[in-house]
Amino acid sequence: MQGAIEAALAKLEPGEHTIAAAGRTDTGVHGLGQVAHCDLKKDWDPFRLSEALNYHLKPDPIAIVDAARVDDDWHARFSAIERQYLFRILMRRAPATHDAGQVWQINHRLDVEAMQAGADMLLGNHDFTTFRSSICQAASPVKTLDELRVEQVQGLSGPEVHFHVRARSFLHNQVRSFVGTLERVGAGAWTPEDVRDALVAKDRAACGPVCPGHGLYLARVGYPDPVFTGDFT
Amino acid sequence: MQGAIEAALAKLEPGEHTIAAAGRTDTGVHGLGQVAHCDLKKDWDPFRLSEALNYHLKPDPIAIVDAARVDDDWHARFSAIERQYLFRILMRRAPATHDAGQVWQINHRLDVEAMQAGADMLLGNHDFTTFRSSICQAASPVKTLDELRVEQVQGLSGPEVHFHVRARSFLHNQVRSFVGTLERVGAGAWTPEDVRDALVAKDRAACGPVCPGHGLYLARVGYPDPVFTGDFT
Repeated sequence: MQGAIEAALAKLEPGEHTIAAAGRTDTGVHGLGQVAHCDLKKDWDPFRLSEALNYHLKPDPIAIVDAARVDDDWHARFSAIERQYLFRILMRRAPATHDAGQVWQINHRLDVEAMQAGADMLLGNHDFTTFRSSICQAASPVKTLDELRVEQVQGLSGPEVHFHVRARSFLHNQVRSFVGTLERVGAGAWTPEDVRDALVAKDRAACGPVCPGHGLYLARVGYPDPVFTGDFT
Repeated sequence: MQGAIEAALAKLEPGEHTIAAAGRTDTGVHGLGQVAHCDLKKDWDPFRLSEALNYHLKPDPIAIVDAARVDDDWHARFSAIERQYLFRILMRRAPATHDAGQVWQINHRLDVEAMQAGADMLLGNHDFTTFRSSICQAASPVKTLDELRVEQVQGLSGPEVHFHVRARSFLHNQVRSFVGTLERVGAGAWTPEDVRDALVAKDRAACGPVCPGHGLYLARVGYPDPVFTGDFT
């Protein structure tokens, strides 16, 4: 995604461009509400800039939803004070068609109440070593989890479970570690208390199976002052 | 879709196969809840049959959600007593990414209340000549529209308007003619009363612009006796 946008920028202003994004979206993770900034020479009108970029991005499944001018010291990543992720599980036996690659598909039912009870064990300020990939480069495993809400919704192709996860920042693979562990609770293999024990263990080996990334969406990035005023975001 | 399923059947039982589907899904229309029947020599277990078909359908974005044994005189199309369609409009300026090809995208807001008032004019038993394609082969333009519900929902990529349309049967392009006309009401170009006038005119030229088909889903087909008992449909 970064490369495609940088190439589109080069069509507008010749030369090398580097964009800085607010949250990492690993392979298969969807950048629904991703925010990035870049430096440009010309004083572009934000609306015309987004239209011009979308024109050049057309072959790719990437779109600029909104654009805004920011101060020189504003940084998409370092100025952010909150990230919100969405994770989608589709419960259906038949292979996904419309949603292929956009959901983690499982063929059994999940107990949403049990999953929420397990999720509640993770809220607040904790050492999240258990839910952190071994290649995580964060300085500290201590983070504050502000929201982890589990809900069942009726999707187009079947019942889905959505996880709404919100924090100032996340460790590498933290959301996928949460979801993979909570799925075990929903399936009845773990109790909600097992989630607390896993957290307290501060041991990567205590984590449930890390789920695949293609149900994961970076849904929103929050800043102290709203950056975007657009009507359609 | 029909060809892919018939080819998969030929992998299971050599020879020619013809399936009969309940509702037509023209190019770009999504067969979400399509129902079809076929004759087979072997007495297949329905679950094993659907699994075997899905295995052979794998390269295609087609899946058998459920399968059931039926009486010899049961016909997917002629035994059906109700069809339900869903139409999705996505209101967003930036090109659709996750939903590309699955929504009709427009870049202005729609007045849902006005659209519902226009939709209400169409309910009941009417001569729907205005909302019928010139190539429609139905014997009569008189149909009974049982439901046309308009609602705004928050989609993954932005606000959507969903149309839920239900009738025993439909004329060719009837749903797309309804949605294209009601979009004009939502945009403020038509009044709800203009929809009634168009209906009463019984004239194809009185119809609003027919909308594209790629936001259209055959959501459900109803039968006097429930055919499927599956948990994941």
